[in-house]
Amino acid sequence: MLPQPLMCAFRGTLKSWRHRAVLKAAFGALDFGNCRWLSSPTSGAVSGMEEILARVVSPLPTYETREKSPPPPEANSLEFMHFYRSLDKGDKLDFLARLSRDFGVDHKSVSEFAGKLLHTQLRDLATILQVEDRLRYSLTPRYKQLLNHISRVEGGVKFLVDLRADVLDIISSKSSESPDLRDLNGTLKSLLSEWFSVGLLRLERITWQSPCEILQKISQYEAVHPVRNWADLKRRVGPYRRCYAFTHAAMPGEPLVVLHVALTEEISDNIQSIVREISILDLEEDVNKVNAAVFYSISSTQTGLQGVELGNYLIKRVVRELQSEFPHLAQFSSLSPIPGFSLWLQGILSQYRKEGRGLDLLSEQEWQEVEQVTDLTPGTNAIDALRKLIATSEWMRSERLSRFLEPVLMRLCAWYLYGEKRRGYALNPVANFHLQNGATMWRLNWHADTSPKGVTNSCSIMVNYRYFLNETSKNSALYLQNKVITASGQVLGLVSQFQKNSKL
Amino acid sequence: MLPQPLMCAFRGTLKSWRHRAVLKAAFGALDFGNCRWLSSPTSGAVSGMEEILARVVSPLPTYETREKSPPPPEANSLEFMHFYRSLDKGDKLDFLARLSRDFGVDHKSVSEFAGKLLHTQLRDLATILQVEDRLRYSLTPRYKQLLNHISRVEGGVKFLVDLRADVLDIISSKSSESPDLRDLNGTLKSLLSEWFSVGLLRLERITWQSPCEILQKISQYEAVHPVRNWADLKRRVGPYRRCYAFTHAAMPGEPLVVLHVALTEEISDNIQSIVREISILDLEEDVNKVNAAVFYSISSTQTGLQGVELGNYLIKRVVRELQSEFPHLAQFSSLSPIPGFSLWLQGILSQYRKEGRGLDLLSEQEWQEVEQVTDLTPGTNAIDALRKLIATSEWMRSERLSRFLEPVLMRLCAWYLYGEKRRGYALNPVANFHLQNGATMWRLNWHADTSPKGVTNSCSIMVNYRYFLNETSKNSALYLQNKVITASGQVLGLVSQFQKNSKL
Amino acid sequence: MLPQPLMCAFRGTLKSWRHRAVLKAAFGALDFGNCRWLSSPTSGAVSGMEEILARVVSPLPTYETREKSPPPPEANSLEFMHFYRSLDKGDKLDFLARLSRDFGVDHKSVSEFAGKLLHTQLRDLATILQVEDRLRYSLTPRYKQLLNHISRVEGGVKFLVDLRADVLDIISSKSSESPDLRDLNGTLKSLLSEWFSVGLLRLERITWQSPCEILQKISQYEAVHPVRNWADLKRRVGPYRRCYAFTHAAMPGEPLVVLHVALTEEISDNIQSIVREISILDLEEDVNKVNAAVFYSISSTQTGLQGVELGNYLIKRVVRELQSEFPHLAQFSSLSPIPGFSLWLQGILSQYRKEGRGLDLLSEQEWQEVEQVTDLTPGTNAIDALRKLIATSEWMRSERLSRFLEPVLMRLCAWYLYGEKRRGYALNPVANFHLQNGATMWRLNWHADTSPKGVTNSCSIMVNYRYFLNETSKNSALYLQNKVITASGQVLGLVSQFQKNSKL
Amino acid sequence: MLPQPLMCAFRGTLKSWRHRAVLKAAFGALDFGNCRWLSSPTSGAVSGMEEILARVVSPLPTYETREKSPPPPEANSLEFMHFYRSLDKGDKLDFLARLSRDFGVDHKSVSEFAGKLLHTQLRDLATILQVEDRLRYSLTPRYKQLLNHISRVEGGVKFLVDLRADVLDIISSKSSESPDLRDLNGTLKSLLSEWFSVGLLRLERITWQSPCEILQKISQYEAVHPVRNWADLKRRVGPYRRCYAFTHAAMPGEPLVVLHVALTEEISDNIQSIVREISILDLEEDVNKVNAAVFYSISSTQTGLQGVELGNYLIKRVVRELQSEFPHLAQFSSLSPIPGFSLWLQGILSQYRKEGRGLDLLSEQEWQEVEQVTDLTPGTNAIDALRKLIATSEWMRSERLSRFLEPVLMRLCAWYLYGEKRRGYALNPVANFHLQNGATMWRLNWHADTSPKGVTNSCSIMVNYRYFLNETSKNSALYLQNKVITASGQVLGLVSQFQKNSKL
Repeated sequence: MLPQPLMCAFRGTLKSWRHRAVLKAAFGALDFGNCRWLSSPTSGAVSGMEEILARVVSPLPTYETREKSPPPPEANSLEFMHFYRSLDKGDKLDFLARLSRDFGVDHKSVSEFAGKLLHTQLRDLATILQVEDRLRYSLTPRYKQLLNHISRVEGGVKFLVDLRADVLDIISSKSSESPDLRDLNGTLKSLLSEWFSVGLLRLERITWQSPCEILQKISQYEAVHPVRNWADLKRRVGPYRRCYAFTHAAMPGEPLVVLHVALTEEISDNIQSIVREISILDLEEDVNKVNAAVFYSISSTQTGLQGVELGNYLIKRVVRELQSEFPHLAQFSSLSPIPGFSLWLQGILSQYRKEGRGLDLLSEQEWQEVEQVTDLTPGTNAIDALRKLIATSEWMRSERLSRFLEPVLMRLCAWYLYGEKRRGYALNPVANFHLQNGATMWRLNWHADTSPKGVTNSCSIMVNYRYFLNETSKNSALYLQNKVITASGQVLGLVSQFQKNSKL
Repeated sequence: MLPQPLMCAFRGTLKSWRHRAVLKAAFGALDFGNCRWLSSPTSGAVSGMEEILARVVSPLPTYETREKSPPPPEANSLEFMHFYRSLDKGDKLDFLARLSRDFGVDHKSVSEFAGKLLHTQLRDLATILQVEDRLRYSLTPRYKQLLNHISRVEGGVKFLVDLRADVLDIISSKSSESPDLRDLNGTLKSLLSEWFSVGLLRLERITWQSPCEILQKISQYEAVHPVRNWADLKRRVGPYRRCYAFTHAAMPGEPLVVLHVALTEEISDNIQSIVREISILDLEEDVNKVNAAVFYSISSTQTGLQGVELGNYLIKRVVRELQSEFPHLAQFSSLSPIPGFSLWLQGILSQYRKEGRGLDLLSEQEWQEVEQVTDLTPGTNAIDALRKLIATSEWMRSERLSRFLEPVLMRLCAWYLYGEKRRGYALNPVANFHLQNGATMWRLNWHADTSPKGVTNSCSIMVNYRYFLNETSKNSALYLQNKVITASGQVLGLVSQFQKNSKL
Repeated sequence: MLPQPLMCAFRGTLKSWRHRAVLKAAFGALDFGNCRWLSSPTSGAVSGMEEILARVVSPLPTYETREKSPPPPEANSLEFMHFYRSLDKGDKLDFLARLSRDFGVDHKSVSEFAGKLLHTQLRDLATILQVEDRLRYSLTPRYKQLLNHISRVEGGVKFLVDLRADVLDIISSKSSESPDLRDLNGTLKSLLSEWFSVGLLRLERITWQSPCEILQKISQYEAVHPVRNWADLKRRVGPYRRCYAFTHAAMPGEPLVVLHVALTEEISDNIQSIVREISILDLEEDVNKVNAAVFYSISSTQTGLQGVELGNYLIKRVVRELQSEFPHLAQFSSLSPIPGFSLWLQGILSQYRKEGRGLDLLSEQEWQEVEQVTDLTPGTNAIDALRKLIATSEWMRSERLSRFLEPVLMRLCAWYLYGEKRRGYALNPVANFHLQNGATMWRLNWHADTSPKGVTNSCSIMVNYRYFLNETSKNSALYLQNKVITASGQVLGLVSQFQKNSKL
Repeated sequence: MLPQPLMCAFRGTLKSWRHRAVLKAAFGALDFGNCRWLSSPTSGAVSGMEEILARVVSPLPTYETREKSPPPPEANSLEFMHFYRSLDKGDKLDFLARLSRDFGVDHKSVSEFAGKLLHTQLRDLATILQVEDRLRYSLTPRYKQLLNHISRVEGGVKFLVDLRADVLDIISSKSSESPDLRDLNGTLKSLLSEWFSVGLLRLERITWQSPCEILQKISQYEAVHPVRNWADLKRRVGPYRRCYAFTHAAMPGEPLVVLHVALTEEISDNIQSIVREISILDLEEDVNKVNAAVFYSISSTQTGLQGVELGNYLIKRVVRELQSEFPHLAQFSSLSPIPGFSLWLQGILSQYRKEGRGLDLLSEQEWQEVEQVTDLTPGTNAIDALRKLIATSEWMRSERLSRFLEPVLMRLCAWYLYGEKRRGYALNPVANFHLQNGATMWRLNWHADTSPKGVTNSCSIMVNYRYFLNETSKNSALYLQNKVITASGQVLGLVSQFQKNSKL
C-alpha cells in the first residue's frame, strides 16, 4: 500500500487506478527521492515548471562518463508525464517552449568542438574521428535522454507520440515561432522513426473476430469514407474485403495505420459499389472472382507520427500478403478521393474571371453551351454561372448537365492532379502520397463518388493510382528525385486536351 | 516463380529455402533492377566487394532532399546480407574495413559545416540551430542508412546484432586497428540501443510449457551453472524456481537475456542447494516458504548487444513481477560466482613471493600454520606451498585444511571484490554489474560452490549482491559517479581484517 | 476439384462455399458411394425422404457385431444435414416423424429380450447381466448411431442442437402427437447432456477485448434487459461489471449461456442503477467498493439445449471465479425480474370479482382507499378500478398512488412467488430456476424496475434470490425433493401479511 | 482459509497443494456436509469402503423425479477420487468389486418393467414407448450418476480414464471373475466413448515450438520406434516429418493418440531411412519432393480408452490436413512393424517338426540349401538348424544367408499376415488395425527394419498398409463384415507361393 500522505496527494490529481497502480509499482520497487512534484501544478505554474524541469531533465553526462550514468529512477519519467498531462493547452505550450529552450543543445560546447575539429584537420584519422564523435555527442539535446527514458515506462511511447502531436500543432498554428521547438520536433521525429521502424511493426488483419476495442478504433479512425454503423463496419471486414493495420509492441491495441482493400473482378471505378449497404455478408468468396485488389481507404491514426513513413510500407506489405493468399492476383490499385479539386476549380474560375481569360479554360462553344444549359439570366457572366452550377450539386440530378460537364471537369481535374505543383511535387496530397510510393496515375473516373461529400469535394470524380509492382521503385525514384509523374494514356490524354483548350 | 536464370544462380549460393522464399517475395513484389550481385563472391572478391558496396550503400542525400529519397529496394538489403554471410572470416574483416572506411562520414562536409557554425556565432538563434542541424546531419555515416534499411527486412535485426558481434571480435582481437571500425561499432551500438530500448522488450516467463525451441536455447545459453540434461533443465523451470527472459519482436523465439531465480526461505549461501539433482519436481510451492528471491544466474545471449543495458532492466522488471506474485516477498539477492579470484590470488602470491612480502598477506602465525598443514618439504617456500595448495582442489577434502584456509581466503576474496579496481570501478565484472545496478555487496559465503569449477575459480566462495529496493537508485549513482561501493558489515569486516594483516 | 457433374448439382443447392469446401474435403478424402442424394429434395419429397432415410440410417448392428461395424462415410452425415436443411417447416415435421417412427427402437427385439430376462431369473448373475446388456442394447433407437456420427462432422453438434429445437417446437406446438417424436427428443436430450457435460465446457470472460462476433451475439441473446446500443454493451463488460459465458469446443464462437454480474457495494435493489446510461467507462475499479456480486441477467441461448443444466453450473463456476478475484467478496445474489406477476394479478382480480370475494384480497379500508385514490366513478366496481389502475402505468407517476399500492402489491407479489405452485414447484419460472439452484428467496424490491417493461410486467417489483454458498446444496435438495422454499424474514413477513388479509 | 481441524486432517493425506486448492475452492463455494471421509482410509478399510460408497453413490432417483434431483455437492466426487487414489492395488480391486456389485443395476426393478412391457404388448404405441423408457432407465447402474458427476470436476475425466485402465487390468489379469466388473467396464466405455467423440477432439500438430511438456510425453509414449534422445525427437518433428496428436479439452496437455508421418519421394521400404541419425534438421522442405506420406508410428497413450476408436479417426483427419498442405500429395501408406512374426514362425517350425511335415513349409531343394548354408552338423534336423538360424540374428551379417532366406521368410510372413486369423480377423494386431480402417495390405519389405529389435521380432521385414482414399470405406466394410482382406498383387503373389509350397 502507498503510505497515507501519498494517498491523499494522489486522490486529487490521479484520474485512474491504473496510474496509481503503475506509480505504486514504481514506488514500491524503486525509490524516487523527494516527492515534491506531488504539489499542485496550478499554483505558481511557472516556477513549478522550472523546478520540475530542473529536476527531471538530468544534465548531459560528460563524453567520458556517458556510459557511466545510471538511468534515472522511473518515477522521474512518470512525474514528467503526469505533470505534463495535468497542464492546460496554454501551459503546455509554455512548458514545451521552456523544455526546448533551456534543455536543448549546449551551443558553447558545440562550437568548442567545432573549433577543435577545424584545428585537427591535419592530424591523423583516429583523432579526427574521435573529435567528430565528441562533436556529434555535443549536438545531443539534453532532453533527449529524458525522452529515451520516458519511452521505457508503460505508456511512454504513446505519451511521446501525443507530445509530438502537440508540438506539431504549436508549430503549424504558429502559436510560437521558437526555433528550439523545431529542434524538439526534429529530435522527437528521429526517435520515433527508430522506434517505429518497419522491422518493429506487426501486420494485423482485422476481422469480425478481432477484439471489439480494435474494431471500434478502426471505425473511429476511418477518415476517408466514414463508417455509418456497426453493420457497415462488419461489411468492411467481411467477404471480398480485407482490412489491415500496423500495430506496435509499445502501443498495444492501437492501430497506427489502417488500409482497407476491396477484392474485385476488375479495378473499381466507383466507391459506392464498395461501401454501399448491400448484403455481402453471407457471400462466400469465390477465388476466381478476385482479380484486383483495390485500396479504397488508408488512414494514419497518430498525428504524432507525421513524417514517419508507415503507409507506403503498409501498402507494400499488404501486397505481399495478398499475393500469398491469391497467387494469381495481379492488379493492385487505389481508388482515391481528390480532396481540394472543387476548391481549386472555384479559385481558378474566380481568378480567370477577374483576368477575363475564360476562353483559356473552356472553348467558345463550351461557354455557349454553359449559357444554354444554365438558362443564363441576361447580364450574368457565364463563368459565374458555371461556378454557381458547380457550387451546388444540382447538376448531378440532370443527365444533360452531367453529360455536358463530364469532359470539361475531367480534363480540368486531370490537370489539377498532374499539372498543379507545390515545390515541384503534386499539389494534391493524396496524389503526392501514392506517387511517392511509386504508383502510376492511372485512371480518372466520372461519377465515381456520388455521395454529397464526393460531389462537393471533387465533382464526383475519383482516381485510381495503380501499383505496377515491378515499376514502383523506379517510379518512386523518378518522382522523388526528378519530380516526374508517371501517368497512363487516359490521364495524359485528358491533360493534353486541357492544354489544347487552355493557355494556362 | 523466379525466372529461370535466377534459379540457377541461387542454387549454388543459397543455403535455405526460407531465404529463397524471402527473396522470391521481394522479387515478386518489388523490382530490384539489375541482378549483377548474383555473380559469385569468391572470384575476384575484392573487386566484388567494391562493386557491391558501391551499389548497395547509397550516397547520403543532401540535407535538403533527405526526406525525399525513396527507400532503396528491399533486394539491396537482402543482397548485402547474403553477400556478407557468404564471406569467410578474413574476407569479412576486409569487407567491414572497406565499408567503414569508404562509406563513413564525409569529413570534408563536416569541417565545412563546423566552419560555418563558427562563423555564425554572432547571428541569431534560428540560424545557429539550423547550421547545427546540418552539422549533425553531416556527421551521419553514409552506411547508417543501409543499416536502417537492413533492420526492416525479415531477419535483418538479428543480422545486425551478429554483424556487430563480428565487429567487436575484430576490435578486441586487434585484427585491425582501424579507427573507422570503431566508428562503425559506435553507430551499430547506438542503433541497437534504440531498437532494444526496454519499452520494446517483452518479458517472458519460461516454464516447462514453453516451446522446446526456447528451452533448448535457455539450456545452451546458460553460462554460469551449465545445464547437465533435460531433467536438470526441467528443475530450473519447476517449483520454487522462476526463469525469465527478455525477447524482442524483431527476433522472435530468441531470448536476449535470461535470469534464473530460486524462491527460498532465506537468502541462499550455497549454489548446490539450488541446482543439485534433488527431486523438487513433485513439490507444490508453499507460498509461506517463499521469503527470498535469489538470482542465481543471469546470462546475456547476444555478443552483438554488448553495452546495450538489458540485465539491469531485466532484474528490476522481474522484481516487480515477483512482488506482484508474492506481495510479502521482501528479500532480493543474487548468489553470484567470483570468476577470476583464484587467478588473481595466484598472481598476487607469485608477485609477493618475488618481492619477498609474504607477511604483507598472511600473519607470521598463519605462515607457520601453512608450513604445518602442508607438511612443507624443507627448502620450499611457504608461499609456493600455499599456491600449490590452492591450485589443486585437494584442500577441499580435508576439514583441517578447509578450516584453516577459510578466514584467509575469505578476507583475501573480500579485498579482491571490494578493493581491486579498474579505472576506479570493481575489477571483478560480476561485482561491477551488480554494483552498477545499485546492489549492495552483502555476504561472502564459504563452501558456497563446491563443484570442481567453483573450487577452481574461486576457492568455493560465492557472494550475494543484495538489492534493497529503495536504495538501488542511490547506490547506483554513488557507484557510477563517485565510485563508492556499498557493502555490508560482514564484507567491510573482512576487508578490514585483510587491511590489518596486509600492507597492500 | 470436384468432378464436373457434381459441380453442377451443387450449384443449385449449396448456399455456401464453406459447405462446398467441407464436402469437397469429405469427398476428396473418403469415398461416398453413389451420389443419388444430390437430386432435388423438392420433387417427390416423400419418396425422397424415404429413400434418403433408408440409405443414411444404417440398421443397428447385431449385438455380437456391434463393435465390428465400420463408421459410415462422413458424406452420409453431410448428406443428411444438407437434405434436412433444405426442407421447409412442414417437410421437416414430416421428415422427423418418419425418422422417429421408422428408425426408432425395434420393439419386437425388446420384448424378445425382456421375455428372455424373465425366464433367466433363476440363473446365475453372469447370465442375468448379459441378458440385461442385450436388452439395453435392444432399447437403442436405430437413429441414435446416425446422430452420433453427425456429431463428429464439422458443425454437426450445432446441427443437432438446432434439430432438437425443431423437435421441441413441434412437441410444444402440438403439431404432432407422435409418441415417437418424444422418444427422439429424449434420445437427443440424453446425447446432448453427455456432450455438454460441464467438464467439456469452457468458461469465458467476455470483455471489450473479446471478438466482436462474440459481443454481437451477447448483445442479441440478452433477453432480460435488452441492450440498446454498443455503448450500452460496452458498459456491460466494463468496470464494476463481469460477463461470463460457457462455450463448447464443438460450437466455437457460440456462447451457450451468458451471465451478467454487477459488482456493487451492497446487494442492488434497483436495476436501473445497473444498466442505466451512466458514464462508468472511465472508472477504475476500487476493490474496496466490491462487496456484492449481483447476477442481473442470465440467458440461455440454445433452445435445443432445454433441460440440459447449464445455468446453475455457470452461476456456481462464476462464484468461484469471483471469489478468486475478490477473496473478501461474500454476498452473492441475483436481481431478478418477475415475469407473469401482473398477468397473474389481473387474473386473480378478475376471478375474485366474479366470485365477489374482493375482501379476500384487500381489507375494507384498502378498498375504500382504492375508491378515493381512483376518483371512482359511481357504479364502478372497486376491483375494476384497481385492475384498470394497474393495467396502465399511470400510478407510477403519482407518489400518492404509488405509496398506497406498495404494501398491497408487495404482499400480493410475495404470495405469487412463494405460494403459487405448479406441480408443487414455484409457478414463476425464474423463481423455480434459482430455488432449484439452492438460492434463498431473499428480498422483494419496490420500484426496482421502473422501465415501462418493468412496470407492465411486475408493477416495478424485482426480487433478489440470494446464494448463501454453504446452504445451496441443502436448499436445493429441500426444494427439489420436498418442495420446500427457503425464504428470508422479509419475504415470509409479506407472505403472512397476505395470508392475514386474504382467505385464498 | 480452511478451518483449523480440516487443515490437520489434510496434512496427512493430501499430496499436493493443488488438490488442497481445489478442495478449498469446492468447500469455500459449496457446502459438503459432514466431513467423515477425512478419517484415514487405512484403518478399517473395508468398513471405510462400505461407509464411503453408501454416502457418495446416491440412490437412483425414481423415474418420475429423475429430472428433479439436485447434483450432489462437488465435494462428493472429490472425496471419492481422493479415497480411491489413496488405496493400494489390492484395496482398489476390492473397492471396485464392491462398487460394481452393490451399486449396479437394480435387477428387481428391471424384471418388473420387463414384465410390464410384456403385458403391454397389446396396448397403444405411446404406452409401449413409455414402458420401454422406464425399462431403459431401470437398466442404468446406480454408479453411473456418480461417474457423470466425477467427469465434471477438474481432473475428473482423466481420473475415470485411469479408473477404467485399472478395471481393464483386473479383468485381463483375471484377478476377479466378477461379471459386475464387466458391467462397470461397459458403462465406463460407453461414457468415455461419448466424451471422446471425435467432434470433441482437437487435432494438434506437434513441432519443436510445442511446449516441452507435450514433447516429453510424445517421447515417452512412442512405443513403436523408441526415441533415443532429444536430438532424435527434434528430427521427428523437423523438416520432412509431421507429428500429429488428438487432445481433449478435459485433459489439457495430454496427447491421446499420436501419429508420426514421414514425407518422402516414394513410399518408404525401410524404417532406418526415416528414424536414423542423419542431419535433416537444416534442410528446407522441397514441396516437389513430397510425393508420399508414410505413417511410420501410431501410438495410443491411454489404456483406459481401449476400444474407443481414435487411431482410425486420427489417420483420416491427418490425411485431410496433409492434402490441404500438399494438394498434389496422393500416396498415403503406413510402414508398419510385424510384431509376433518370429514367434509365430518358431512355433510353426516347432510344430511341423513334431509332426514331421517340414516339406509342407519349404521345398526339398530349399531344405537342402538349409543344410548347406548352415553347415549342418550330422544328426541335426534341418528344421532345428533353420530355427536356430532365425533365433540368432547371425544370418543378417551374411549376404548369402540373407539372399537364401529372403524368399522363404517373405512368403511365410505374407501368409502370417494374410492367412493367420483369430475369430476370422487378422491375427496380427497391427494388420487388424489398418485393415479395419480400410487400408490395403500393400507391400512386404525385406531388410526394412535392420535394428536388432526389427530382426528379432520380424526377421527385418516390415509391411506397408496403403490407404487408397476412395476405397477405405468399401474395404473397411468388407473386412469388418465379411472378413475379406484387400491385398496387393505382391502380397497375394507371396501368399500363393506359400500355398504352392505348403500344405498348411
